[in-house]
Amino acid sequence: RAPVLGLRNGSSMALQGEKTDRVKKEPVAESAGAPGGKDEKQISYWGIPPEKISKEDGTEWKWNCFRPWETYKADLSIDLQKHHVPTTFLDKMAFWTVKSLRWPTDLFFQRRYGCRAMMLETVAAVPGMVGGLLLHCKSLRRFEHSGGWIKALLEEAENERMHLMTFMEVAKPKWYERALVFTVQGVFFNAYFLGYLISPKFAHRMVGYLEEEAIHSYTEFLKELDKGNIENVPAPAIAIDYWRLPADSTLRDVVTVVRADEAHHRDVNHFASDIHYQGRELRESAAPLGYH
Amino acid sequence: RAPVLGLRNGSSMALQGEKTDRVKKEPVAESAGAPGGKDEKQISYWGIPPEKISKEDGTEWKWNCFRPWETYKADLSIDLQKHHVPTTFLDKMAFWTVKSLRWPTDLFFQRRYGCRAMMLETVAAVPGMVGGLLLHCKSLRRFEHSGGWIKALLEEAENERMHLMTFMEVAKPKWYERALVFTVQGVFFNAYFLGYLISPKFAHRMVGYLEEEAIHSYTEFLKELDKGNIENVPAPAIAIDYWRLPADSTLRDVVTVVRADEAHHRDVNHFASDIHYQGRELRESAAPLGYH
Ligand SMILES: [Fe+2]
Ligand SMILES: [Fe+2]
Ligand SMILES: [Fe+2]
Ligand SMILES: [Fe+2]
Repeated sequence: RAPVLGLRNGSSMALQGEKTDRVKKEPVAESAGAPGGKDEKQISYWGIPPEKISKEDGTEWKWNCFRPWETYKADLSIDLQKHHVPTTFLDKMAFWTVKSLRWPTDLFFQRRYGCRAMMLETVAAVPGMVGGLLLHCKSLRRFEHSGGWIKALLEEAENERMHLMTFMEVAKPKWYERALVFTVQGVFFNAYFLGYLISPKFAHRMVGYLEEEAIHSYTEFLKELDKGNIENVPAPAIAIDYWRLPADSTLRDVVTVVRADEAHHRDVNHFASDIHYQGRELRESAAPLGYH
Repeated sequence: RAPVLGLRNGSSMALQGEKTDRVKKEPVAESAGAPGGKDEKQISYWGIPPEKISKEDGTEWKWNCFRPWETYKADLSIDLQKHHVPTTFLDKMAFWTVKSLRWPTDLFFQRRYGCRAMMLETVAAVPGMVGGLLLHCKSLRRFEHSGGWIKALLEEAENERMHLMTFMEVAKPKWYERALVFTVQGVFFNAYFLGYLISPKFAHRMVGYLEEEAIHSYTEFLKELDKGNIENVPAPAIAIDYWRLPADSTLRDVVTVVRADEAHHRDVNHFASDIHYQGRELRESAAPLGYH
């Protein structure tokens, strides 16, 4: 290893000239360590040039947070009515926990479904990430395969985050809403983390019920759109790309695909809980992957 | 919602008959709630039947933890010699932290590179997951896009976990090694979590240096294989599928592709640290995705 001396900082290897200047207006990282000052920045990237991706119609792909191959068509044929009837004590506890969380939520948001969706998606994206993290660490500790569940749960988290990125375009969070999200995340992340450690059976069941409620409130959202109480604005560009929607789609179409996603999450989580109820571990059953 | 009563537990919807019996020997979850006792189990799955995937040659795909579309050919042309020269105090601290961790490791494993690889991959898979988790939560809290970094870091974690799944096939962990992994994960997970919260700049730089060391020890591993001190056994089946290796590949080929992966992680992490050094946030620069 030949040390390269005399650089102002960091990226010594930017000097080796793998990459020369690219368009400066692009939002790409440039090496602060390259010579020539601000005007002749080089892409250091440790040799990783930014990709250029185009859409099928040849226009530039403008999203860094997801790529064309991660987009999908939501399964609108999914059964929205399915409900897991709580019978065991744990199921009932999960059910009533969710039900009791619904009243303050209804009270807070009332009929502001756009805002409600945006706020609740910040919470919805937590369980998948926590579950994925815990299963990942367990897989490492125990030298065990995951059965695809790590990925399935992380995909759920990613999908929920995309819901948020979509609703953000429709409803802008106010400062006190940001503060609320901050607090709720702090509480919910830790509660769910602990809950998942103690009883993944309960945790997945609860998420299953949360998703049932989500389906319900998206259905209400659709009703308000149909009644004209909420304006059926054009779909945000990010939603059109993510769910491969027609260019003239509206908010109604977006809510419909999001609701289908929630129904999928409901199935995945009730399924995961069922596996635990059978006294088995998730890794023993192939995870339902490939929805996206 | 029509409640279905009288079931022994959980999966009420298994009764609705979306799925009938499939081969019982398959490692798929079966509904404990279905009537008919153990012999007539139904796949409840909340309507999610297990996928049947075949390889290109028509044989059945046997891995649940990764799918054919997630496999890739490692980039063997990647520069293995690149080194980030530490110049700032933080860089030097990261560099010497890693260097000082190397001595006890060398002492413990000596020339047992198979075992060393297996044990260290359990640690290597932690930073990507922690970074991904923290960026995910930040993205939710701030209503911000991630620039693809959440996915890039989670992909790194996943890739490291696949390294572990591969080396597990070559070296079996003994009970005291399992105990060691348990302890080290507990300490390292929390330390890295805190470290990333305090200074992602430092955290990524440290991982960059860890990866430089990983490249070094895989190079030593190759030397021992070439000298015949370690037997060049056939590559595990999982490695052949994951890296799309020829069927007659050996451990040497596996170590070579794993080393290329580590070089990629090194680049990604030094790059991430560089972005922070420029006073910017990761989301402002497109993440290097699409390696896999
Ligand atoms: Fe959602
Ligand atoms: Fe959901
Ligand atoms: Fe690795
Ligand atoms: Fe690595």
